[in-house]
Amino acid sequence: MRRIYIASYHQSKFGKLMDLKVPQIIANAVNGVCRQISVAPAAIDVGSIGAACNFTLNEQGLLAGLMASVPGLEGKPIEAVENACASGGMAVLSVGHKLQLGMGEVGVAVGYEKMRDAEGKMDGALVGKVLGYFSHPEERTGKVYVFPHLFAEVMRDYMAVHGATEGDLAQIAVSEYAKARYNPCAQMNKVQITLEQATKIEGSNRYVVSGLPLKTYDCSQISDGYAALILATAEGLNRLGVPKAEAVELAGWGQATDALKKEGRDVLRPAGAYRAMNKAYEMAGVKPADVNVAEVHDCFTVMGAIGTEVIGKAQPGKGAKYWVEGNAEPDGGCAINTSGGLIAKGHPVGATGIAMIGWAAQQLLGKAPVEVQVKNPKAAATFNIGGPICASVCTVLRRAL
Amino acid sequence: MRRIYIASYHQSKFGKLMDLKVPQIIANAVNGVCRQISVAPAAIDVGSIGAACNFTLNEQGLLAGLMASVPGLEGKPIEAVENACASGGMAVLSVGHKLQLGMGEVGVAVGYEKMRDAEGKMDGALVGKVLGYFSHPEERTGKVYVFPHLFAEVMRDYMAVHGATEGDLAQIAVSEYAKARYNPCAQMNKVQITLEQATKIEGSNRYVVSGLPLKTYDCSQISDGYAALILATAEGLNRLGVPKAEAVELAGWGQATDALKKEGRDVLRPAGAYRAMNKAYEMAGVKPADVNVAEVHDCFTVMGAIGTEVIGKAQPGKGAKYWVEGNAEPDGGCAINTSGGLIAKGHPVGATGIAMIGWAAQQLLGKAPVEVQVKNPKAAATFNIGGPICASVCTVLRRAL
Repeated sequence: MRRIYIASYHQSKFGKLMDLKVPQIIANAVNGVCRQISVAPAAIDVGSIGAACNFTLNEQGLLAGLMASVPGLEGKPIEAVENACASGGMAVLSVGHKLQLGMGEVGVAVGYEKMRDAEGKMDGALVGKVLGYFSHPEERTGKVYVFPHLFAEVMRDYMAVHGATEGDLAQIAVSEYAKARYNPCAQMNKVQITLEQATKIEGSNRYVVSGLPLKTYDCSQISDGYAALILATAEGLNRLGVPKAEAVELAGWGQATDALKKEGRDVLRPAGAYRAMNKAYEMAGVKPADVNVAEVHDCFTVMGAIGTEVIGKAQPGKGAKYWVEGNAEPDGGCAINTSGGLIAKGHPVGATGIAMIGWAAQQLLGKAPVEVQVKNPKAAATFNIGGPICASVCTVLRRAL
Repeated sequence: MRRIYIASYHQSKFGKLMDLKVPQIIANAVNGVCRQISVAPAAIDVGSIGAACNFTLNEQGLLAGLMASVPGLEGKPIEAVENACASGGMAVLSVGHKLQLGMGEVGVAVGYEKMRDAEGKMDGALVGKVLGYFSHPEERTGKVYVFPHLFAEVMRDYMAVHGATEGDLAQIAVSEYAKARYNPCAQMNKVQITLEQATKIEGSNRYVVSGLPLKTYDCSQISDGYAALILATAEGLNRLGVPKAEAVELAGWGQATDALKKEGRDVLRPAGAYRAMNKAYEMAGVKPADVNVAEVHDCFTVMGAIGTEVIGKAQPGKGAKYWVEGNAEPDGGCAINTSGGLIAKGHPVGATGIAMIGWAAQQLLGKAPVEVQVKNPKAAATFNIGGPICASVCTVLRRAL
């Protein structure tokens, strides 16, 4: 099988893209990721694009046609993929598959989401409703905000089963806000929170669903943003003029989809997520012990905990403890979400999976901001998930050899 | 490269699925296509699903999670793809890619659309608006029904450039209604039209956009429906117990995406469509002259004409003439749209590309209804397209050897 490399990464600042329109967002993503390595889009053979709320919030489909509108990409095989909040990760895998099949030597994966209006404001009820489309219809009844509600139940269950506290989980958010401070693209890089603020019901921090432990600071952001990766085969790297020393290998990946209903599944130990992650490790020939950089899908703090378990850095139920003990810090056992994570970096749905891989690649190249740069980065794991812990996309990265 | 075969095909009657809900539609598609060859869904390794209007009309995303809800598919790699009206074709290619990569030996491609309400009625303004999302925002202004309007312009231009008449193009619809009569799954199989009815402005037949030649009978239907294919490698066929004599080879395919704006491109000779079709022919080692069965994407009669040219059965500008001279009939040079086409069979957007391939496969196996069955079917071509002649998915099929 042909080896696949990450040749370039580019993202917008996450948060507010103001009056930027979808055609321009996609063009900026493609042109930006090409500019990073001084190539023209015509160097790209294949493409995939992921977004999730585009139909309802942007009234736009056929994103592949907008990508093909970028001069140099006309007539190429481009497709849109949708896997809820794992749409971006899916787009990366889709490009990887095409390159492995020999459909080209260079491919681009783009993800974006435009969730706020031209003034940067968000319509919370509308966004909540649209995100709710990624749940099973039978699990929406009686929930005002479907996903915060579903994950508030997951948080309750995680705490009950594993004996974790609200404070343990809040520690994940506190750590991420602290890291985001150094990420110039993070939405919340000007906001700092203490454990007291994250646990006390005061000001903007409130219980989102009555009777359940999820609080405002346990939640990720509603964000605009885009991200793009150029993937290439070894021959593609040559064509692009990117030396292997400046590339990261997408050494392994896995994808698995569980049933959409949360009920009836052990979402604290999600079968598909473990399956996808194990597949990625196996393909890369890498063990969790080899990994000291990771980005996991912390749409809510409890998923930061579960994600830490899925990537194999903590036993089931010990994910929150891993953070509380400082192991997820840049100088810990495995630096997790040094980008700030979805909670503090922002969560422009379609862009998220791409940004996770892009940031992890920057870490491996030693190009992360110095304050959060891991010393001697060895290998990285990413875990992107969509829906009610349903659709998993996992990758393992290492420096190109 | 591993050869890919079609092991099973199943579709609903196109038209009205009444109060069937999306989870049940997807389950019916998967279970139905498995039942055709008496296997359980657990025999399937990978899946892809295509739909287009699901977010707005059905308030449902993460269709992969609904597919994974079918017992036997839990935890498998399943993804949703979107390529406007070529979403179904894209789902088939997506499965083909996964099988070629060795991610499994058996895969399922599902497409569906639920465009009418529980009483079978349609909200024309809403459907028109949602389909409009597959156009470039700058080309929507001033159009009540975006796609009929865009294709009315294409029809006008085709007639002006190639000297075709409204009657020539109407002949395509007349031929398709006549064929649909024998397709038990066709939406319009109880309706027959004459050339006079299709050309005279009378009753329900009217000019859709003032000053442009497109009439009601030039348009495809607003349909509910689903379709599914099981693809397999040679090893997969063995596992399924399907003899090669009962399988069709998906011998070649191609995909290409042109820029989304219609303006500035020669849509009468769409570059991406020709590129995708030529790629499919090249991969299959088949020439247009070898093909005597085809299904082309006649969303409007003019696309039936252009499609005939894209598959190489008529020179540019001579596609309508091919139909007028009777060459597209079951006993003609190449039987095109013996299913009834999108115009008379129906056009449940996500299902369409899958149904085209499925019907063509039935023709090659000699299993089409006797009245439209081609004598000595040799090879088949399909041409599925989305948006304003933008996103093309083409295949070439032949009997398995």
